[in-house]
Amino acid sequence: MPNPLLSDRTVDFLLYEVLDVTTLTRLPAFEAHSRDTFDPYLDACRKLAREKLFPAYKALDESPPRLESGRVRVHPLLRELYPKMVELGLLTATRPEAVGGQQLPIVVANLAASYLMAGNLSAYGYAGLTTSAARLIESFGSEALRDSFMTKMYGGEWTGTMALTEPQAGSSLSDVKTTATPTEGGHHSIRGSKIFISGGDQDFTENIVNLTLARIQGAPPGVKGISLFAIPNRRFERGSLVPNDVEVAGVIHKIGWKGIPSIAQNYGERGDCHGYLVGQPHRGLAYMFQMMNEARLMVGMNGVATASVAYFESLEYAKTRPQGRPIANKNPEAPQVPIIVHADVRRMLLRQKAIVEGGLSLVAWASREADLAEHSPAESERKEHALLLDLLTPVVKSFPAERGFESNALAVQIHGGYGYSSEYLPEAFLRDQKLNSLHEGTTGIQSMDLLGRKVAQDGGRALELLSREVRFAVSRAREAGLPATLTEPVETALRSVLDLTEHLLGLGSPDRTLLHSVDYLDLFGTFVVGFLWLRNATVANEALRRGTSETAFYEGKLAAAEYFIRTELRRVETLAALCREGEDSYVRLDENAF
Amino acid sequence: MPNPLLSDRTVDFLLYEVLDVTTLTRLPAFEAHSRDTFDPYLDACRKLAREKLFPAYKALDESPPRLESGRVRVHPLLRELYPKMVELGLLTATRPEAVGGQQLPIVVANLAASYLMAGNLSAYGYAGLTTSAARLIESFGSEALRDSFMTKMYGGEWTGTMALTEPQAGSSLSDVKTTATPTEGGHHSIRGSKIFISGGDQDFTENIVNLTLARIQGAPPGVKGISLFAIPNRRFERGSLVPNDVEVAGVIHKIGWKGIPSIAQNYGERGDCHGYLVGQPHRGLAYMFQMMNEARLMVGMNGVATASVAYFESLEYAKTRPQGRPIANKNPEAPQVPIIVHADVRRMLLRQKAIVEGGLSLVAWASREADLAEHSPAESERKEHALLLDLLTPVVKSFPAERGFESNALAVQIHGGYGYSSEYLPEAFLRDQKLNSLHEGTTGIQSMDLLGRKVAQDGGRALELLSREVRFAVSRAREAGLPATLTEPVETALRSVLDLTEHLLGLGSPDRTLLHSVDYLDLFGTFVVGFLWLRNATVANEALRRGTSETAFYEGKLAAAEYFIRTELRRVETLAALCREGEDSYVRLDENAF
Repeated sequence: MPNPLLSDRTVDFLLYEVLDVTTLTRLPAFEAHSRDTFDPYLDACRKLAREKLFPAYKALDESPPRLESGRVRVHPLLRELYPKMVELGLLTATRPEAVGGQQLPIVVANLAASYLMAGNLSAYGYAGLTTSAARLIESFGSEALRDSFMTKMYGGEWTGTMALTEPQAGSSLSDVKTTATPTEGGHHSIRGSKIFISGGDQDFTENIVNLTLARIQGAPPGVKGISLFAIPNRRFERGSLVPNDVEVAGVIHKIGWKGIPSIAQNYGERGDCHGYLVGQPHRGLAYMFQMMNEARLMVGMNGVATASVAYFESLEYAKTRPQGRPIANKNPEAPQVPIIVHADVRRMLLRQKAIVEGGLSLVAWASREADLAEHSPAESERKEHALLLDLLTPVVKSFPAERGFESNALAVQIHGGYGYSSEYLPEAFLRDQKLNSLHEGTTGIQSMDLLGRKVAQDGGRALELLSREVRFAVSRAREAGLPATLTEPVETALRSVLDLTEHLLGLGSPDRTLLHSVDYLDLFGTFVVGFLWLRNATVANEALRRGTSETAFYEGKLAAAEYFIRTELRRVETLAALCREGEDSYVRLDENAF
Repeated sequence: MPNPLLSDRTVDFLLYEVLDVTTLTRLPAFEAHSRDTFDPYLDACRKLAREKLFPAYKALDESPPRLESGRVRVHPLLRELYPKMVELGLLTATRPEAVGGQQLPIVVANLAASYLMAGNLSAYGYAGLTTSAARLIESFGSEALRDSFMTKMYGGEWTGTMALTEPQAGSSLSDVKTTATPTEGGHHSIRGSKIFISGGDQDFTENIVNLTLARIQGAPPGVKGISLFAIPNRRFERGSLVPNDVEVAGVIHKIGWKGIPSIAQNYGERGDCHGYLVGQPHRGLAYMFQMMNEARLMVGMNGVATASVAYFESLEYAKTRPQGRPIANKNPEAPQVPIIVHADVRRMLLRQKAIVEGGLSLVAWASREADLAEHSPAESERKEHALLLDLLTPVVKSFPAERGFESNALAVQIHGGYGYSSEYLPEAFLRDQKLNSLHEGTTGIQSMDLLGRKVAQDGGRALELLSREVRFAVSRAREAGLPATLTEPVETALRSVLDLTEHLLGLGSPDRTLLHSVDYLDLFGTFVVGFLWLRNATVANEALRRGTSETAFYEGKLAAAEYFIRTELRRVETLAALCREGEDSYVRLDENAF
């Protein structure tokens, strides 16, 4: 069986049975849509992912981009793959008709995109980054920028990037030093260096636009003095494209995502780099956060997709690799059995399934919240959904990255010694996955965002909204006949999270509140996914009670829910006790004692 | 500061303050030794590791072995490194003087070897495998085999390998199919295929001897019909070496350990492969288990060493990389601080330290048990130490591999985006580490060995011996003034382990007993290392109470103990509850529901 990348039946289950996304078509924004428009788009993405992107995965992994005479040469297959993604309408799937988009709900577009990510993270990466960059110009750029840059990017002629990080600053954006000097020509003259610019150079489109953070001369220090610029690698002069003094300073040798280069870029070494201000001066970080929040959702999807494709590799291997015999059968002349018969292999498979599908449930839910935050009729509703989305964002960013890495390691483990060789794919997915805990804000950064900002925002309103959802899910689970062994742990975890949050926010010093922020993020994410599994199990049990021909499918959901709630959710209590006690050995320790 | 690979001070602490290994010199076997012989050997290993092996690490990682006209070409640096290891006396460090050895205690030799592993796993690998293979001939081989093969191997002229795994059998040794047919010449004619033979070919010595499992014609099926053979790649004929019909069928593209090839080997394709029986027919697996148990201890050391070198990379990075400011300092014009100031970076560092040094404590303790099992005066003592060593072996094999992998991932995480690039070393160590949960018996295999065999052996005597050690350590910790927050969790964990073990062994069916065997191994290993941290903390506290100029060093031990006991040891209770409940979602699930 070829790798399905994601389970179609599970995607349909989440979209139509759990989240009931057809109800979104009642909103004016989506009134042109119905399941009859969603499914063909999903199918087209599945087909492209399976027939074109995934078959190119190994080639891109094996032949990473090379720097040749100052230009980056990427794998030639991208000349074929990128236009196919453009043709599919991927770049503007969620954008309004006014800019040539299909105006699909984000939740549908994201689940469809997950297939492309699972098939080929790097190839998809160019498309995802281009959409995000163009989207910033759509939202905040002048009409001139929209007519030129945005149109070219959405049209697939140019690609886009996000250029935030600088070598001396890393995650500390307040230390961005790239400068922008106003000129008489209306543009700014840019000087500076950026690093880790994914897709910052390639040779399959004629141009690339970098959405870049820089300081206008005389701007206040820190994050309040950062502005957003569009800086093309080549600019129009008298109707033709000329170099814009954007130089490739180096290609970073990444250990995964090898189809898309990570570039160190220099601007204005010859004093001739034109940057175009996007929106108002000094508002750059606020604008960028729109892109960054979408990017964080995308990282979550990357994490789920990468864990999913590896899960299916190991599932197929487990079903087809004969080795050993059941414990009770000691007869060495009996035939060997497929390793899926062994309990520990099944444990590893079900753990992967619970992480992959739990992560997908999380991403799908957050995506629907993004739709409702943008398109709900009442402002109060929009605000509530936005708050919930904000709260979920650090969880979406980190749960699939962290648990997904463990899930990817299990896919290697199931392959035994073969898993340690590059003749099999799981090791490549393990390498790919590691990036997700690092880019777009490390797990540590996400944890400070969650505990230092999101749970306290608006007097804790977001957490109240989440609690309401959880309580509703628990009562519906009871009505559906789910046992207390599934409902009670979720209720207990909710109480623990609420009590702990109140306790930590009451400690009075940010240092003490944030001491165990990563443990808090871990337990919070586990709790949220535990609740989502309860919701999935409820829908599954309802279907089984109604009677269905898909017994195995729904029982798979119940088993994964049971596994997750009884095994993973336990960690909430353990971690909560740790956070509450405030164990601080690592903070007290002298630097020389490490 | 150059990477120290391991902390000298910690190695000395474990050898001389915690384990007091100079007392071993009271045993007749070690009477020629004293700290004055131990330290120069340790220093020589440190020096070679730091000055030769570690500087060659990246070169070996970047240029893996190639297959050229049927022969494997390894990195030319090995022609220089291997003789230096031989010269050091590494191959026979623990062997008796009768075979040219130094007769050092295993505990001293192993800690010394850990530096070489940390410096260059692959380069050390050739030496470690050669010693193990020669050791089998020393223990079980005929005088003729000892005079020829063993002497050449111990002398560094030939290398050795372990050839167990076959493509169709993997971990299932009862399915070994390689055949051995007796001949009139006294040797056996061998036919078959092996896979994953580390060092099965190379071009820096004139010959290689493969210690191979095969079935003599007419042998009983299963593991009872397996014999051990020495199969050289080339054999003597009329005084000169000629090919022995051992062909390289392929080189596996491993993702780490790139300096040593993993080979698929064919024996006897031309009907001309001579194998020499080692010991008695059909006893092969029992013999091999001597080598395998040593190999498992070596895997544990590899795991610790790989986590250690990565820990020191990330510690140095954290001390020297400026980024961001303390939470309380919002002034963007204040200088950035080294990231070791940030609580979450410290948490990651202390976790690494606790895993690395906890793992080293485990390996050191098990090694001393190996010395006492071999050389204690009374047979009853030897038996007790052997039982304890047997019990510890699956833990030694798996704790450093599993927690070490997490520790290695933290070293990558601390490096941020740079950690994701091959310009920095931690990603290579992460790749190296992954093998340790796979080779010499996967973690799943270790868990069945522990719970299915070792804890039940001799009516649970080994577990009694461990309990006695733990109780003694707890009472000594109390006397040394350690707080109840450190002693009580260890006592509680001991009770949990004993109760749980009794419960699981009483379930009456191996399927039920072993259902959560990997969770059991995980909690057992965490418990053992928790106890070892309590012992380390006791010694540290005693030193601090006596007064010392090394306050930071000993406080580092106390902090790591506190971290491990309060954070990691908690998992024992969580996992024990899971094992006891027997959550079995994964076993019940239909294969098609995954």
